[in-house]
Amino acid sequence: MTSYVKIPSHLRPSDPQGPDLLTQERESASFDVKELTLLLYGIKDLERYHKILNIIENDPVFDKTNIYFMGRDKLFEYTIKKEKRLVQLIKENKWNVEELQYAEWFLDMPGPFGAHRGMFIPTLIGHGTEEQKKKFLIPAKNYQIIGCYAQTELGHGSNVQGLETTSTYIPETDEFEIHSPFLTSSKWWIGGLGRTATHAIVMAQLKSNGKDYGPHPFIVQIRDLETHLPLPGITIGDIGPKFGFNATDNGFMLFEHVRIPRFNMLSKYCQIEKATGKYISPPNDKINYGIMVLIRSLIVTGVRVTLARAATIAIRYSAIRRQFIDKDEPKNRIVETSVLDYTMQQYRLFPIIAQSYACFFTSKAMNNLYTKYMEQSSDGNYSLLADIHASSSGLKSLTTTMAVESIEDCRRACGGHGYSSFSGFVKFYQDYLPNTTWEGDNYVLTQQTARYLMKTFRKVTKNPKKYASQIGTNPTITYILQYLNEPNQKCMATTPLNFNNQEFQLKAFRHRIAYLLANAVDQIDNQKKSWNSMLVEINRISHAHCQYLLVQNFITALQYNSQQQINDESLNILHNSTSLKKVMTSLCNLFVLHTMEKDVGEFLESEYLTSSQARLLRTQVYNLLKEIRPNAVSLVDAFLIPDALLSSALGRYDGKVYETMIDWASKEPLNGIILNIDPNNNNTILEKAKL
Amino acid sequence: MTSYVKIPSHLRPSDPQGPDLLTQERESASFDVKELTLLLYGIKDLERYHKILNIIENDPVFDKTNIYFMGRDKLFEYTIKKEKRLVQLIKENKWNVEELQYAEWFLDMPGPFGAHRGMFIPTLIGHGTEEQKKKFLIPAKNYQIIGCYAQTELGHGSNVQGLETTSTYIPETDEFEIHSPFLTSSKWWIGGLGRTATHAIVMAQLKSNGKDYGPHPFIVQIRDLETHLPLPGITIGDIGPKFGFNATDNGFMLFEHVRIPRFNMLSKYCQIEKATGKYISPPNDKINYGIMVLIRSLIVTGVRVTLARAATIAIRYSAIRRQFIDKDEPKNRIVETSVLDYTMQQYRLFPIIAQSYACFFTSKAMNNLYTKYMEQSSDGNYSLLADIHASSSGLKSLTTTMAVESIEDCRRACGGHGYSSFSGFVKFYQDYLPNTTWEGDNYVLTQQTARYLMKTFRKVTKNPKKYASQIGTNPTITYILQYLNEPNQKCMATTPLNFNNQEFQLKAFRHRIAYLLANAVDQIDNQKKSWNSMLVEINRISHAHCQYLLVQNFITALQYNSQQQINDESLNILHNSTSLKKVMTSLCNLFVLHTMEKDVGEFLESEYLTSSQARLLRTQVYNLLKEIRPNAVSLVDAFLIPDALLSSALGRYDGKVYETMIDWASKEPLNGIILNIDPNNNNTILEKAKL
Repeated sequence: MTSYVKIPSHLRPSDPQGPDLLTQERESASFDVKELTLLLYGIKDLERYHKILNIIENDPVFDKTNIYFMGRDKLFEYTIKKEKRLVQLIKENKWNVEELQYAEWFLDMPGPFGAHRGMFIPTLIGHGTEEQKKKFLIPAKNYQIIGCYAQTELGHGSNVQGLETTSTYIPETDEFEIHSPFLTSSKWWIGGLGRTATHAIVMAQLKSNGKDYGPHPFIVQIRDLETHLPLPGITIGDIGPKFGFNATDNGFMLFEHVRIPRFNMLSKYCQIEKATGKYISPPNDKINYGIMVLIRSLIVTGVRVTLARAATIAIRYSAIRRQFIDKDEPKNRIVETSVLDYTMQQYRLFPIIAQSYACFFTSKAMNNLYTKYMEQSSDGNYSLLADIHASSSGLKSLTTTMAVESIEDCRRACGGHGYSSFSGFVKFYQDYLPNTTWEGDNYVLTQQTARYLMKTFRKVTKNPKKYASQIGTNPTITYILQYLNEPNQKCMATTPLNFNNQEFQLKAFRHRIAYLLANAVDQIDNQKKSWNSMLVEINRISHAHCQYLLVQNFITALQYNSQQQINDESLNILHNSTSLKKVMTSLCNLFVLHTMEKDVGEFLESEYLTSSQARLLRTQVYNLLKEIRPNAVSLVDAFLIPDALLSSALGRYDGKVYETMIDWASKEPLNGIILNIDPNNNNTILEKAKL
Repeated sequence: MTSYVKIPSHLRPSDPQGPDLLTQERESASFDVKELTLLLYGIKDLERYHKILNIIENDPVFDKTNIYFMGRDKLFEYTIKKEKRLVQLIKENKWNVEELQYAEWFLDMPGPFGAHRGMFIPTLIGHGTEEQKKKFLIPAKNYQIIGCYAQTELGHGSNVQGLETTSTYIPETDEFEIHSPFLTSSKWWIGGLGRTATHAIVMAQLKSNGKDYGPHPFIVQIRDLETHLPLPGITIGDIGPKFGFNATDNGFMLFEHVRIPRFNMLSKYCQIEKATGKYISPPNDKINYGIMVLIRSLIVTGVRVTLARAATIAIRYSAIRRQFIDKDEPKNRIVETSVLDYTMQQYRLFPIIAQSYACFFTSKAMNNLYTKYMEQSSDGNYSLLADIHASSSGLKSLTTTMAVESIEDCRRACGGHGYSSFSGFVKFYQDYLPNTTWEGDNYVLTQQTARYLMKTFRKVTKNPKKYASQIGTNPTITYILQYLNEPNQKCMATTPLNFNNQEFQLKAFRHRIAYLLANAVDQIDNQKKSWNSMLVEINRISHAHCQYLLVQNFITALQYNSQQQINDESLNILHNSTSLKKVMTSLCNLFVLHTMEKDVGEFLESEYLTSSQARLLRTQVYNLLKEIRPNAVSLVDAFLIPDALLSSALGRYDGKVYETMIDWASKEPLNGIILNIDPNNNNTILEKAKL
């Protein structure tokens, strides 16, 4: 890239130098970083990681620093280039699903083909008949057609039942007529629709013989394959600029009585009978839930790496950045204090490292549970579904909200430079943000969780003995029964250190969620409060339940002991290394106690904690920050987030923060113009700069 | 602007229509909106408002929707056009400072001339001698030279004492030599420096006769007035793209032994004597603090309108948007529920309206206090300074953090459409964000507040009788003495309604801050904890103190009674209208109780509240939401944020949300291209679209 400003080459940053500081930090680690990395990835995935990274890093089309300077028009055109290159690489290297996942992670490029791979193809696979797959899936996999998934409308998001687009069966011609009766019926936000897709899976209200059957999916060709222009009766456009995702053409679409063959209704599970228009309903409506659970569990896995990426930048830069002289430390009188030595900075950042590890163990637990459910459901056993669905909804809500907050906390912890795009936070934050809204709005979702928990509470309260056998296996039943047995349980901690006791920790979270639940059920059942009037409490309940799950999964992972047969690569590594187990225990304690302390009002209100215990708890949080401090940089190194993904001057592995900041700034194209600042002269540019 | 997509003209949104819904909402108000607007602005300012808005709204150069589609290059060039037009308007209309402020507010355009007007000229006025003003201020006011204020460096932000740029007096030539010894010494983040400024006020470490005198301001010409190129020895560039502020050329600058005349040191208060190089020190170092206090109080005033703007968009759109059918409301079985009727939405949004009004009364109080201080200080009486400085630091920190959170809360409360730039939130949030970092990082600032409060606590504890006379006038002394007299005070509320009692409210906040303060002083003085180890508590203390100030100022405004002579236009209007007073009282109660409830842990920990009272408190918050619901739209209407400023499809006054969304989307320039999506063909564009 062109440099428009010549930076004097003899200058270097004032001492101490970034690379030296990071080396010192790395020397103070109490554990083996490579071992922890292996725990996180496993051997096979680590090989895959390096193989794919090597290809992506060395392909000039995927360079990321240049996109910092692009407006939406150039960015979009450039992203199409990248998408095309990615398709070529997939074909050349015959990447499988896991390999493609790594490539997409490193590329960090939400783009116009994303919905094609992530929504269109999976929906065809999941809901198409064999004939439909033959007709659409094969050309889709060859990128001869590009698809999108058109559900959300201008007037309707979360409430799928309220969609306005209709699909009416016309027996005379054996067709469906897709129609948008209102402006608000316009499909909206559809990824890849605006400029790219040739086909769409359109969710529309199915009507036949004057009856309504609710929203169903239809395949509609929307653009001509030669001219790429919208087909007659279809109005399509890009919806305009957004907070992030500006390399994706989210689109809108209106239909004016558009006909499609009956064949195009996705018919694996339900269909309209030819000529009679009779509706043949799906054998089981639980199938769709399975896919939703899977998508949400992937989002939680995404939270783990999102937190890791944010923490990596903020921790490395904080180890290098110095501000002010700590007056209580006479030996430091001359050198300014490393920002990472300030308690406040530790308090802001270390819990985020701990959150990432907490999500690691919970996403493992979710995957195990999902696998178990899939096995059972193939035998027609859906007993796990309600619990998994409730927990995955709540966890999606809790963890994505946490991730957005944590990215922003890390960004602000980098001071002024966090605001620069070169920090690596800006596009990162902007692109991550929709996670709080899509796949279920984070507030709406918590209602699903709380509804299930309340139902369970009522069930268990009615007949506690019936459920006693599930103590220890079902977390919800466990805490409800514990609370029913001992509603006035008190915390026994008398010193800060007592709060490290894992039994105290579990009891605290169990007591608090059960207390909130008991209270809410009482208000609805006995005080006859409406569901709407309880929405704030409902949100609290879902969060408390899911925090408990995170706490429990973290603690359970640490409690495995060497006598047990461990069938899990990560846990094997963890329990064979005293040093790893020690640092993970510190992080677990920090995660649990910091989470408690942030919501201390609920623990005090449930009268599990006393006022003086709240102070002890806080002291223990500060003690843990000190304990973690020497390992901070190594803990984020272990995440192994590559520089190519970070795309950050502040967070790069080698610590050359300031050299990179000024080098990248010199490439800003604005530096290639010379202004005319005379307010009486309407020409704004004097000339293009010469170097 | 060109429309690239033809939207079928017969389509309208499905019922109910936005304009009708807003009309209904407006009819349900219990007060006169115009009266409340007058309370906020006053007659004179309201005239000014309309006069300026009329000019700005009707000038095509200032149209805002087109900037949604611009990349940084075009946006910057266009902003220069707007800056030039603004300069012409200032001259043509002879705008005074207040009129210019309205123009800048409506324009909402952080641009390259901002630092010239906001920093360069005021610093010249405040720190320049008469000769210096003659030389620099006159051409600056005529825009013959454009200035910037160069303080922050690549390696140093908050810690001004640590700046690396030097200015060494050379007696032989009677000059200063400005020099950047390291890469980290580069000036960085300097608004207007990157491409625009011809002159800079450079903060540099003053050195003379081998002695260091700390940072001082120097005027340096940095670019040639003809060629606009940097002068010899000076390297300048734009620092690149940022989260927001991309129409401003924040710049960097390095000096290689650059000489300036001794005359160019800003010398109103201190100077270097010719030839001897003797340092003549300022008569009083308290002068700079006055300006800092003023800037921070302006930031708090800014918070008020920021919150108002965010709430206006979210409340209006929530009144129009419908999602799901409330199953507890049989009459609504067919029509979906207005989002604003969900308790959760009210809980997310109504406190933000209340915060804006709270900031209104506190910014009034700050201005009154500042005026009083300025009068006293001109007589050499600086007794108010320490208190004002501490409170303004803490209030800046508390309220800007609150504002950023509230903008984002409002944005997310708009669901998916909040993510679109057309929501009016995106650029708004991005440009507001730096307020948490600049003019004192929000975490660093709280140390200044807490340091003063602890000092006061020690002083008063030592000799309570000496300070007894200040009860009621000095808020800090009032709560300390109250706490010393009655450290175990308890809340007397036994019903939700009791929490509306203003004495209970004040006591709660007084007790909580004093408790935190007593605890922290004990830990430092008796348990010998270091300042660094206490930083988290210090932050809590500052926030608790400033929340108390907000609460107290709101309550005080409402407590004026009609018997008193009121010398204040706003308070006169408030106390002459029963309906206004009633709705303001609801808002005050909501502000106070919601603030309490959010931090309920501290009120429980200080043992002022019991667990069951915490539940009553929460019930009362929900009761207040219901009370405010019919007035919600009118309360934001009263803020009088013009559509021209909102630049929002969701928040516009007339309620035509969906029509505007699709109209603006049709203008997205991406809609003017047709893609080539074939992955085997490297051309990305097939052709430009024809309409």
